[in-house]
Amino acid sequence: MSPKINITIGQSACFTKTITESDVYTFAGISGDLNPAHINEEYAKTTRFGGRIAHGMLSAGLISAVIGMQLPGPGTIYMGQELKFLSPVRIGDTVTARVQVASIDEKRRQAVLETTCTNQDNALLISGQAKVLLP
Amino acid sequence: MSPKINITIGQSACFTKTITESDVYTFAGISGDLNPAHINEEYAKTTRFGGRIAHGMLSAGLISAVIGMQLPGPGTIYMGQELKFLSPVRIGDTVTARVQVASIDEKRRQAVLETTCTNQDNALLISGQAKVLLP
Amino acid sequence: MSPKINITIGQSACFTKTITESDVYTFAGISGDLNPAHINEEYAKTTRFGGRIAHGMLSAGLISAVIGMQLPGPGTIYMGQELKFLSPVRIGDTVTARVQVASIDEKRRQAVLETTCTNQDNALLISGQAKVLLP
Amino acid sequence: MSPKINITIGQSACFTKTITESDVYTFAGISGDLNPAHINEEYAKTTRFGGRIAHGMLSAGLISAVIGMQLPGPGTIYMGQELKFLSPVRIGDTVTARVQVASIDEKRRQAVLETTCTNQDNALLISGQAKVLLP
Repeated sequence: MSPKINITIGQSACFTKTITESDVYTFAGISGDLNPAHINEEYAKTTRFGGRIAHGMLSAGLISAVIGMQLPGPGTIYMGQELKFLSPVRIGDTVTARVQVASIDEKRRQAVLETTCTNQDNALLISGQAKVLLP
Repeated sequence: MSPKINITIGQSACFTKTITESDVYTFAGISGDLNPAHINEEYAKTTRFGGRIAHGMLSAGLISAVIGMQLPGPGTIYMGQELKFLSPVRIGDTVTARVQVASIDEKRRQAVLETTCTNQDNALLISGQAKVLLP
Repeated sequence: MSPKINITIGQSACFTKTITESDVYTFAGISGDLNPAHINEEYAKTTRFGGRIAHGMLSAGLISAVIGMQLPGPGTIYMGQELKFLSPVRIGDTVTARVQVASIDEKRRQAVLETTCTNQDNALLISGQAKVLLP
Repeated sequence: MSPKINITIGQSACFTKTITESDVYTFAGISGDLNPAHINEEYAKTTRFGGRIAHGMLSAGLISAVIGMQLPGPGTIYMGQELKFLSPVRIGDTVTARVQVASIDEKRRQAVLETTCTNQDNALLISGQAKVLLP
Protein backbone atom coordinates (compact mmCIF):
# COMPACT_ATOMS: atom_id res chain seq x y z
CA MET A 1 0.00 0.00 0.00
CA SER A 2 1.24 3.44 -0.90
CA PRO A 3 1.87 6.02 1.81
CA LYS A 4 -0.86 8.64 2.29
CA ILE A 5 -0.54 11.79 0.17
CA ASN A 6 0.33 14.58 2.57
CA ILE A 7 -0.11 17.72 0.49
CA THR A 8 -3.34 19.61 -0.10
CA ILE A 9 -4.61 21.86 -2.88
CA GLY A 10 -3.73 25.48 -2.19
CA GLN A 11 -0.80 24.64 0.10
CA SER A 12 2.27 26.76 -0.65
CA ALA A 13 5.93 27.21 0.27
CA CYS A 14 8.67 29.61 -0.78
CA PHE A 15 12.40 30.31 -0.70
CA THR A 16 14.02 33.73 -0.99
CA LYS A 17 17.56 34.65 -1.97
CA THR A 18 19.38 37.78 -3.05
CA ILE A 19 21.03 36.93 -6.38
CA THR A 20 24.64 38.09 -6.47
CA GLU A 21 27.31 38.55 -9.10
CA SER A 22 28.97 35.51 -7.58
CA ASP A 23 25.84 33.39 -8.23
CA VAL A 24 25.65 34.54 -11.84
CA TYR A 25 29.31 33.86 -12.54
CA THR A 26 29.22 30.49 -10.83
CA PHE A 27 26.12 29.47 -12.78
CA ALA A 28 27.80 30.65 -15.99
CA GLY A 29 30.76 28.45 -15.18
CA ILE A 30 28.87 25.26 -14.45
CA SER A 31 26.24 25.61 -17.19
CA GLY A 32 28.61 26.90 -19.84
CA ASP A 33 26.18 29.76 -20.53
CA LEU A 34 28.71 32.52 -21.07
CA ASN A 35 26.21 34.69 -22.94
CA PRO A 36 27.59 38.26 -22.81
CA ALA A 37 24.27 39.40 -21.33
CA HIS A 38 25.41 37.62 -18.16
CA ILE A 39 29.17 38.14 -18.00
CA ASN A 40 30.11 41.12 -20.18
CA GLU A 41 29.11 44.40 -18.51
CA GLU A 42 30.29 46.55 -21.44
CA TYR A 43 28.05 44.60 -23.82
CA ALA A 44 25.20 44.41 -21.32
CA LYS A 45 25.16 48.20 -20.87
CA THR A 46 24.15 48.50 -24.54
CA THR A 47 21.18 46.12 -24.26
CA ARG A 48 17.59 46.93 -23.32
CA PHE A 49 18.39 45.79 -19.77
CA GLY A 50 21.18 48.32 -19.23
CA GLY A 51 23.45 45.86 -17.42
CA ARG A 52 24.21 42.22 -16.76
CA ILE A 53 21.26 40.00 -15.86
CA ALA A 54 21.04 36.63 -14.16
CA HIS A 55 20.35 33.41 -16.06
CA GLY A 56 16.67 32.45 -16.10
CA MET A 57 17.61 28.89 -15.18
CA LEU A 58 19.31 30.15 -12.00
CA SER A 59 16.00 31.53 -10.74
CA ALA A 60 14.31 28.35 -11.96
CA GLY A 61 16.76 26.53 -9.69
CA LEU A 62 15.14 28.25 -6.70
CA ILE A 63 11.80 26.74 -7.75
CA SER A 64 13.47 23.35 -7.82
CA ALA A 65 14.80 24.04 -4.30
CA VAL A 66 11.29 24.58 -2.95
CA ILE A 67 9.92 21.48 -4.69
CA GLY A 68 12.76 19.20 -3.61
CA MET A 69 13.15 20.44 -0.06
CA GLN A 70 9.77 21.71 1.10
CA LEU A 71 6.71 21.06 -1.06
CA PRO A 72 6.26 18.20 -1.77
CA GLY A 73 9.85 17.75 -0.43
CA PRO A 74 12.43 14.94 -0.46
CA GLY A 75 11.39 11.89 -2.44
CA THR A 76 9.47 13.92 -5.03
CA ILE A 77 10.27 13.05 -8.67
CA TYR A 78 10.39 16.14 -10.88
CA MET A 79 8.53 15.19 -14.08
CA GLY A 80 8.36 18.50 -15.89
CA GLN A 81 8.47 22.26 -15.68
CA GLU A 82 7.04 25.03 -17.85
CA LEU A 83 8.69 28.43 -17.51
CA LYS A 84 7.72 31.84 -18.89
CA PHE A 85 10.51 34.37 -18.43
CA LEU A 86 8.62 37.66 -17.99
CA SER A 87 11.16 40.06 -16.50
CA PRO A 88 14.91 39.94 -16.07
CA VAL A 89 16.67 39.40 -12.75
CA ARG A 90 19.38 41.97 -12.16
CA ILE A 91 22.40 41.37 -9.96
CA GLY A 92 21.36 42.31 -6.42
CA ASP A 93 17.68 41.49 -6.87
CA THR A 94 16.06 39.45 -4.11
CA VAL A 95 14.12 36.62 -5.73
CA THR A 96 11.33 34.65 -4.06
CA ALA A 97 10.38 31.32 -5.61
CA ARG A 98 6.87 30.25 -4.64
CA VAL A 99 5.26 26.86 -5.20
CA GLN A 100 1.52 26.23 -4.72
CA VAL A 101 -0.36 22.98 -5.19
CA ALA A 102 -2.85 23.40 -8.07
CA SER A 103 -4.19 19.87 -8.48
CA ILE A 104 -3.58 16.34 -7.27
CA ASP A 105 -4.15 13.09 -9.20
CA GLU A 106 -4.41 10.64 -6.30
CA LYS A 107 -4.51 7.55 -8.51
CA ARG A 108 -1.26 8.33 -10.30
CA ARG A 109 0.21 10.08 -7.24
CA GLN A 110 0.97 13.10 -9.39
CA ALA A 111 0.47 16.79 -8.71
CA VAL A 112 0.55 20.02 -10.70
CA LEU A 113 2.16 22.96 -8.95
CA GLU A 114 1.91 26.66 -9.80
CA THR A 115 5.44 28.05 -9.73
CA THR A 116 6.44 31.70 -9.74
CA CYS A 117 9.44 33.88 -9.08
CA THR A 118 8.98 37.48 -7.97
CA ASN A 119 11.45 40.18 -6.93
CA GLN A 120 11.65 42.61 -4.00
CA ASP A 121 9.19 44.94 -5.75
CA ASN A 122 6.74 42.08 -6.23
CA ALA A 123 7.29 42.11 -10.00
CA LEU A 124 6.53 38.75 -11.61
CA LEU A 125 9.77 37.41 -13.08
CA ILE A 126 8.83 33.84 -13.96
CA SER A 127 5.49 32.07 -14.10
CA GLY A 128 4.77 28.47 -14.94
CA GLN A 129 3.80 25.04 -13.74
CA ALA A 130 5.62 21.98 -12.48
CA LYS A 131 4.44 18.37 -12.69
CA VAL A 132 5.70 16.00 -10.02
CA LEU A 133 5.37 12.41 -8.89
CA LEU A 134 4.67 12.44 -5.17
CA PRO A 135 6.93 10.64 -2.68
CA MET B 1 14.33 48.41 -40.26
CA SER B 2 15.06 45.27 -38.28
CA PRO B 3 18.14 43.19 -39.06
CA LYS B 4 17.57 40.15 -41.27
CA ILE B 5 16.68 36.92 -39.45
CA ASN B 6 19.69 34.67 -39.79
CA ILE B 7 18.46 31.30 -38.59
CA THR B 8 16.60 28.69 -40.65
CA ILE B 9 14.16 25.92 -39.82
CA GLY B 10 15.97 22.65 -39.09
CA GLN B 11 19.24 24.34 -38.14
CA SER B 12 20.76 22.89 -34.98
CA ALA B 13 23.60 23.33 -32.48
CA CYS B 14 24.76 21.50 -29.39
CA PHE B 15 26.98 21.66 -26.31
CA THR B 16 28.37 18.68 -24.43
CA LYS B 17 29.74 18.49 -20.88
CA THR B 18 30.56 15.72 -18.44
CA ILE B 19 28.59 16.53 -15.28
CA THR B 20 30.77 16.18 -12.20
CA GLU B 21 30.18 15.92 -8.48
CA SER B 22 31.61 19.42 -8.28
CA ASP B 23 28.96 20.73 -10.72
CA VAL B 24 26.16 19.15 -8.72
CA TYR B 25 27.43 20.48 -5.40
CA THR B 26 28.03 23.94 -6.80
CA PHE B 27 24.55 24.04 -8.31
CA ALA B 28 23.09 22.87 -4.99
CA GLY B 29 24.89 25.73 -3.29
CA ILE B 30 23.77 28.51 -5.60
CA SER B 31 20.19 27.29 -6.08
CA GLY B 32 19.67 26.26 -2.46
CA ASP B 33 18.43 22.87 -3.70
CA LEU B 34 20.02 20.65 -1.05
CA ASN B 35 17.56 17.82 -1.73
CA PRO B 36 19.19 14.65 -0.33
CA ALA B 37 18.83 13.03 -3.76
CA HIS B 38 21.62 15.37 -4.84
CA ILE B 39 23.92 15.65 -1.81
CA ASN B 40 23.38 12.64 0.46
CA GLU B 41 24.84 9.44 -1.01
CA GLU B 42 23.60 7.25 1.85
CA TYR B 43 20.02 8.38 1.23
CA ALA B 44 20.40 8.30 -2.54
CA LYS B 45 21.58 4.68 -2.49
CA THR B 46 18.12 3.75 -1.12
CA THR B 47 16.20 5.47 -3.93
CA ARG B 48 15.17 4.07 -7.30
CA PHE B 49 18.23 5.77 -8.82
CA GLY B 50 20.75 3.97 -6.61
CA GLY B 51 22.90 7.03 -6.03
CA ARG B 52 23.09 10.80 -6.20
CA ILE B 53 21.69 12.44 -9.33
CA ALA B 54 22.21 15.88 -10.84
CA HIS B 55 19.60 18.62 -10.65
CA GLY B 56 17.35 18.75 -13.72
CA MET B 57 17.84 22.51 -13.90
CA LEU B 58 21.60 22.02 -14.21
CA SER B 59 21.12 20.11 -17.47
CA ALA B 60 18.53 22.69 -18.49
CA GLY B 61 21.30 25.25 -18.03
CA LEU B 62 23.19 23.54 -20.85
CA ILE B 63 20.21 24.17 -23.16
CA SER B 64 20.30 27.81 -22.15
CA ALA B 65 24.02 27.82 -22.99
CA VAL B 66 23.32 26.68 -26.57
CA ILE B 67 20.52 29.21 -27.05
CA GLY B 68 22.44 32.15 -25.62
CA MET B 69 25.80 31.43 -27.20
CA GLN B 70 25.15 29.61 -30.49
CA LEU B 71 21.61 29.33 -31.79
CA PRO B 72 20.18 31.93 -32.08
CA GLY B 73 23.11 33.29 -29.97
CA PRO B 74 23.87 36.57 -28.19
CA GLY B 75 21.06 39.11 -28.25
CA THR B 76 18.34 36.42 -28.08
CA ILE B 77 15.67 37.03 -25.44
CA TYR B 78 14.61 33.80 -23.73
CA MET B 79 10.81 33.95 -23.49
CA GLY B 80 9.97 30.49 -22.22
CA GLN B 81 11.02 26.89 -21.80
CA GLU B 82 9.10 23.65 -21.40
CA LEU B 83 11.02 20.75 -19.88
CA LYS B 84 10.12 17.09 -19.48
CA PHE B 85 12.55 15.28 -17.19
CA LEU B 86 12.60 11.74 -18.60
CA SER B 87 15.71 10.13 -17.12
CA PRO B 88 18.07 11.12 -14.34
CA VAL B 89 21.59 12.42 -14.89
CA ARG B 90 24.12 10.60 -12.74
CA ILE B 91 27.41 12.10 -11.60
CA GLY B 92 29.93 11.36 -14.37
CA ASP B 93 27.37 11.30 -17.19
CA THR B 94 28.25 13.25 -20.31
CA VAL B 95 25.26 15.35 -21.30
CA THR B 96 24.65 16.82 -24.74
CA ALA B 97 22.16 19.67 -25.01
CA ARG B 98 20.82 20.05 -28.54
CA VAL B 99 18.73 22.91 -29.92
CA GLN B 100 16.96 22.78 -33.30
CA VAL B 101 14.84 25.47 -34.93
CA ALA B 102 11.25 24.21 -35.24
CA SER B 103 9.42 27.28 -36.50
CA ILE B 104 9.98 30.98 -37.11
CA ASP B 105 7.42 33.79 -36.82
CA GLU B 106 9.08 36.44 -38.98
CA LYS B 107 6.58 39.18 -38.15
CA ARG B 108 7.06 38.92 -34.41
CA ARG B 109 10.72 37.90 -34.78
CA GLN B 110 10.03 34.87 -32.57
CA ALA B 111 11.12 31.25 -32.95
CA VAL B 112 10.26 27.92 -31.38
CA LEU B 113 13.19 25.60 -30.73
CA GLU B 114 13.16 21.88 -30.01
CA THR B 115 15.44 21.31 -27.04
CA THR B 116 16.78 17.99 -25.79
CA CYS B 117 19.44 16.60 -23.48
CA THR B 118 20.87 13.14 -24.08
CA ASN B 119 23.63 11.19 -22.36
CA GLN B 120 26.65 9.24 -23.59
CA ASP B 121 24.41 6.22 -24.33
CA ASN B 122 22.08 8.40 -26.37
CA ALA B 123 19.33 8.05 -23.76
CA LEU B 124 16.89 10.95 -23.83
CA LEU B 125 17.14 12.80 -20.51
CA ILE B 126 15.14 15.94 -21.19
CA SER B 127 12.82 16.91 -24.02
CA GLY B 128 10.97 20.16 -24.54
CA GLN B 129 10.65 23.41 -26.40
CA ALA B 130 12.00 26.91 -26.01
CA LYS B 131 10.41 30.13 -27.23
CA VAL B 132 12.73 33.01 -28.05
CA LEU B 133 12.68 36.56 -29.36
CA LEU B 134 15.33 36.80 -32.08
CA PRO B 135 18.18 39.32 -31.84
CA MET C 1 6.27 41.99 24.93
CA SER C 2 8.59 39.35 23.57
CA PRO C 3 7.25 36.61 21.31
CA LYS C 4 6.65 33.24 22.93
CA ILE C 5 9.61 30.84 22.99
CA ASN C 6 8.70 28.04 20.59
CA ILE C 7 11.36 25.41 21.26
CA THR C 8 11.26 22.75 23.96
CA ILE C 9 13.94 20.82 25.84
CA GLY C 10 14.80 17.60 24.04
CA GLN C 11 13.63 18.82 20.64
CA SER C 12 16.11 18.01 17.86
CA ALA C 13 16.80 18.56 14.16
CA CYS C 14 19.49 17.42 11.76
CA PHE C 15 21.02 17.93 8.32
CA THR C 16 22.97 15.35 6.35
CA LYS C 17 25.42 15.80 3.49
CA THR C 18 28.03 13.68 1.76
CA ILE C 19 31.28 15.67 1.99
CA THR C 20 33.05 15.76 -1.37
CA GLU C 21 36.49 16.71 -2.62
CA SER C 22 34.82 19.75 -4.14
CA ASP C 23 33.56 20.85 -0.70
CA VAL C 24 37.00 20.45 0.86
CA TYR C 25 38.75 22.39 -1.89
CA THR C 26 36.15 25.13 -1.90
CA PHE C 27 36.40 25.49 1.89
CA ALA C 28 40.20 25.57 1.61
CA GLY C 29 39.89 28.39 -0.90
CA ILE C 30 37.52 30.60 1.07
CA SER C 31 39.06 29.99 4.52
CA GLY C 32 42.66 30.08 3.36
CA ASP C 33 43.26 26.80 5.23
CA LEU C 34 45.55 25.16 2.70
CA ASN C 35 46.94 22.73 5.26
CA PRO C 36 48.47 19.83 3.28
CA ALA C 37 46.31 17.41 5.28
CA HIS C 38 43.40 18.79 3.25
CA ILE C 39 44.82 19.48 -0.20
CA ASN C 40 48.01 17.45 -0.66
CA GLU C 41 47.24 13.78 -1.23
CA GLU C 42 50.90 12.74 -1.37
CA TYR C 43 51.53 14.31 2.04
CA ALA C 44 48.24 13.07 3.46
CA LYS C 45 49.02 9.47 2.51
CA THR C 46 51.94 9.60 4.97
CA THR C 47 49.84 10.80 7.93
CA ARG C 48 47.95 8.71 10.47
CA PHE C 49 44.78 9.32 8.43
CA GLY C 50 46.15 7.76 5.23
CA GLY C 51 44.65 10.39 2.94
CA ARG C 52 43.19 13.86 2.73
CA ILE C 53 40.61 14.80 5.36
CA ALA C 54 37.98 17.53 5.48
CA HIS C 55 38.36 20.66 7.58
CA GLY C 56 36.73 20.41 11.00
CA MET C 57 35.14 23.80 10.48
CA LEU C 58 33.41 22.54 7.35
CA SER C 59 31.50 19.96 9.40
CA ALA C 60 30.95 22.62 12.05
CA GLY C 61 29.29 24.63 9.28
CA LEU C 62 26.63 21.91 9.01
CA ILE C 63 25.82 22.47 12.70
CA SER C 64 25.43 26.16 11.97
CA ALA C 65 23.08 25.24 9.09
CA VAL C 66 20.77 23.34 11.46
CA ILE C 67 20.80 26.14 14.04
CA GLY C 68 20.18 28.93 11.54
CA MET C 69 17.63 27.19 9.38
CA GLN C 70 15.76 24.71 11.56
CA LEU C 71 16.30 24.77 15.31
CA PRO C 72 15.85 27.43 16.60
CA GLY C 73 15.88 28.72 12.98
CA PRO C 74 15.95 32.15 11.30
CA GLY C 75 16.33 35.05 13.70
CA THR C 76 18.53 33.09 16.11
CA ILE C 77 21.73 34.86 17.21
CA TYR C 78 24.68 32.49 17.46
CA MET C 79 26.49 33.41 20.71
CA GLY C 80 29.04 30.64 21.00
CA GLN C 81 30.11 27.15 20.04
CA GLU C 82 32.34 24.57 21.69
CA LEU C 83 33.72 21.87 19.40
CA LYS C 84 35.64 18.68 20.16
CA PHE C 85 37.09 17.13 17.03
CA LEU C 86 37.03 13.41 17.80
CA SER C 87 37.44 11.68 14.44
CA PRO C 88 38.43 12.89 11.00
CA VAL C 89 36.00 13.28 8.10
CA ARG C 90 37.31 11.65 4.96
CA ILE C 91 36.31 12.72 1.46
CA GLY C 92 33.13 10.79 0.61
CA ASP C 93 31.90 10.46 4.19
CA THR C 94 28.25 11.31 4.80
CA VAL C 95 28.05 13.64 7.78
CA THR C 96 24.94 14.23 9.88
CA ALA C 97 24.88 17.34 12.06
CA ARG C 98 22.39 17.03 14.91
CA VAL C 99 21.21 19.77 17.26
CA GLN C 100 19.22 19.08 20.42
CA VAL C 101 17.89 21.59 22.94
CA ALA C 102 19.61 20.99 26.30
CA SER C 103 18.35 23.91 28.37
CA ILE C 104 16.41 27.14 28.01
CA ASP C 105 16.86 30.35 30.02
CA GLU C 106 13.46 31.96 29.48
CA LYS C 107 14.37 35.25 31.17
CA ARG C 108 17.39 35.90 28.95
CA ARG C 109 15.80 34.15 25.97
CA GLN C 110 18.93 32.00 25.65
CA ALA C 111 19.31 28.30 25.04
CA VAL C 112 22.09 25.72 25.20
CA LEU C 113 22.10 23.16 22.41
CA GLU C 114 23.93 19.82 22.26
CA THR C 115 25.60 19.64 18.87
CA THR C 116 27.14 16.58 17.25
CA CYS C 117 28.36 15.37 13.90
CA THR C 118 28.36 11.66 13.08
CA ASN C 119 29.22 9.74 9.93
CA GLN C 120 27.51 6.97 7.94
CA ASP C 121 28.88 4.38 10.41
CA ASN C 122 27.47 6.34 13.34
CA ALA C 123 30.97 7.25 14.53
CA LEU C 124 31.04 10.43 16.58
CA LEU C 125 33.11 13.01 14.69
CA ILE C 126 32.38 16.19 16.62
CA SER C 127 30.71 16.79 19.96
CA GLY C 128 30.04 20.08 21.68
CA GLN C 129 27.55 22.72 22.70
CA ALA C 130 26.16 25.86 21.18
CA LYS C 131 24.76 28.88 23.01
CA VAL C 132 22.14 30.94 21.21
CA LEU C 133 19.90 33.96 21.73
CA LEU C 134 16.38 32.94 20.67
CA PRO C 135 14.49 34.85 17.96
CA MET D 1 62.03 9.72 20.55
CA SER D 2 59.55 12.44 19.67
CA PRO D 3 60.72 15.52 17.76
CA LYS D 4 61.46 18.61 19.86
CA ILE D 5 58.51 20.93 20.49
CA ASN D 6 59.23 24.06 18.46
CA ILE D 7 56.65 26.54 19.70
CA THR D 8 56.92 28.79 22.75
CA ILE D 9 54.41 30.42 25.08
CA GLY D 10 53.43 33.87 23.84
CA GLN D 11 54.35 33.15 20.23
CA SER D 12 51.69 34.36 17.77
CA ALA D 13 50.71 34.33 14.10
CA CYS D 14 47.87 35.77 12.08
CA PHE D 15 46.06 35.72 8.74
CA THR D 16 43.97 38.53 7.29
CA LYS D 17 41.33 38.45 4.57
CA THR D 18 38.62 40.77 3.32
CA ILE D 19 35.39 38.77 3.46
CA THR D 20 33.40 39.16 0.27
CA GLU D 21 29.85 38.46 -0.82
CA SER D 22 31.31 35.62 -2.86
CA ASP D 23 32.89 34.07 0.26
CA VAL D 24 29.59 34.24 2.13
CA TYR D 25 27.57 32.75 -0.72
CA THR D 26 30.13 30.01 -1.33
CA PHE D 27 30.19 29.11 2.37
CA ALA D 28 26.37 29.07 2.40
CA GLY D 29 26.46 26.65 -0.50
CA ILE D 30 28.94 24.18 0.94
CA SER D 31 27.65 24.28 4.53
CA GLY D 32 23.97 24.35 3.59
CA ASP D 33 23.53 27.34 5.89
CA LEU D 34 21.09 29.37 3.78
CA ASN D 35 19.88 31.35 6.81
CA PRO D 36 18.25 34.52 5.39
CA ALA D 37 20.60 36.60 7.58
CA HIS D 38 23.32 35.52 5.13
CA ILE D 39 21.63 35.39 1.72
CA ASN D 40 18.47 37.56 1.80
CA GLU D 41 19.27 41.27 1.82
CA GLU D 42 15.63 42.35 2.08
CA TYR D 43 15.21 40.28 5.26
CA ALA D 44 18.62 41.24 6.60
CA LYS D 45 17.86 44.95 6.29
CA THR D 46 15.11 44.46 8.88
CA THR D 47 17.39 42.81 11.45
CA ARG D 48 19.49 44.46 14.14
CA PHE D 49 22.49 44.16 11.80
CA GLY D 50 20.93 46.19 8.99
CA GLY D 51 22.22 43.90 6.24
CA ARG D 52 23.60 40.51 5.39
CA ILE D 53 26.33 39.18 7.67
CA ALA D 54 28.94 36.46 7.19
CA HIS D 55 28.67 33.04 8.82
CA GLY D 56 30.57 32.83 12.12
CA MET D 57 32.10 29.55 11.02
CA LEU D 58 33.60 31.25 7.96
CA SER D 59 35.66 33.52 10.22
CA ALA D 60 36.42 30.51 12.42
CA GLY D 61 37.85 28.93 9.28
CA LEU D 62 40.48 31.67 9.23
CA ILE D 63 41.57 30.61 12.73
CA SER D 64 41.88 27.06 11.47
CA ALA D 65 44.00 28.40 8.60
CA VAL D 66 46.51 29.96 11.02
CA ILE D 67 46.68 26.82 13.17
CA GLY D 68 47.09 24.42 10.26
CA MET D 69 49.48 26.45 8.20
CA GLN D 70 51.54 28.60 10.58
CA LEU D 71 51.27 27.98 14.30
CA PRO D 72 51.80 25.20 15.15
CA GLY D 73 51.50 24.45 11.39
CA PRO D 74 51.27 21.29 9.25
CA GLY D 75 51.08 18.08 11.24
CA THR D 76 49.07 19.65 14.06
CA ILE D 77 45.95 17.72 15.10
CA TYR D 78 43.04 20.02 15.90
CA MET D 79 41.46 18.63 19.10
CA GLY D 80 38.96 21.31 19.96
CA GLN D 81 37.85 24.90 19.60
CA GLU D 82 35.77 27.22 21.75
CA LEU D 83 34.22 30.20 19.98
CA LYS D 84 32.37 33.23 21.34
CA PHE D 85 30.71 35.22 18.56
CA LEU D 86 30.85 38.79 19.85
CA SER D 87 30.19 40.98 16.82
CA PRO D 88 28.95 40.25 13.32
CA VAL D 89 31.15 40.27 10.23
CA ARG D 90 29.63 42.34 7.43
CA ILE D 91 30.36 41.76 3.75
CA GLY D 92 33.46 43.79 2.94
CA ASP D 93 34.96 43.61 6.43
CA THR D 94 38.62 42.71 6.67
CA VAL D 95 39.04 40.00 9.27
CA THR D 96 42.29 39.14 11.05
CA ALA D 97 42.49 35.76 12.76
CA ARG D 98 45.18 35.69 15.45
CA VAL D 99 46.53 32.66 17.29
CA GLN D 100 48.76 32.90 20.36
CA VAL D 101 50.26 30.06 22.38
CA ALA D 102 48.79 30.15 25.93
CA SER D 103 50.19 26.97 27.45
CA ILE D 104 52.10 23.83 26.48
CA ASP D 105 51.78 20.37 28.02
CA GLU D 106 55.14 18.87 27.00
CA LYS D 107 54.33 15.38 28.26
CA ARG D 108 51.16 15.01 26.21
CA ARG D 109 52.52 17.19 23.41
CA GLN D 110 49.40 19.35 23.64
CA ALA D 111 48.99 23.11 23.59
CA VAL D 112 46.23 25.61 24.32
CA LEU D 113 46.03 28.56 21.94
CA GLU D 114 44.21 31.88 22.40
CA THR D 115 42.29 32.52 19.19
CA THR D 116 40.64 35.78 18.15
CA CYS D 117 39.19 37.44 15.09
CA THR D 118 39.13 41.22 14.81
CA ASN D 119 38.04 43.56 12.01
CA GLN D 120 39.61 46.60 10.31
CA ASP D 121 38.46 48.82 13.22
CA ASN D 122 40.08 46.47 15.72
CA ALA D 123 36.67 45.38 17.04
CA LEU D 124 36.74 41.94 18.62
CA LEU D 125 34.52 39.64 16.54
CA ILE D 126 35.37 36.22 17.94
CA SER D 127 37.28 35.15 21.04
CA GLY D 128 38.07 31.66 22.22
CA GLN D 129 40.61 28.93 22.67
CA ALA D 130 41.88 26.03 20.62
CA LYS D 131 43.38 22.79 21.90
CA VAL D 132 45.88 21.02 19.64
CA LEU D 133 48.12 17.98 19.55
CA LEU D 134 51.54 19.13 18.40
CA PRO D 135 53.21 17.67 15.30
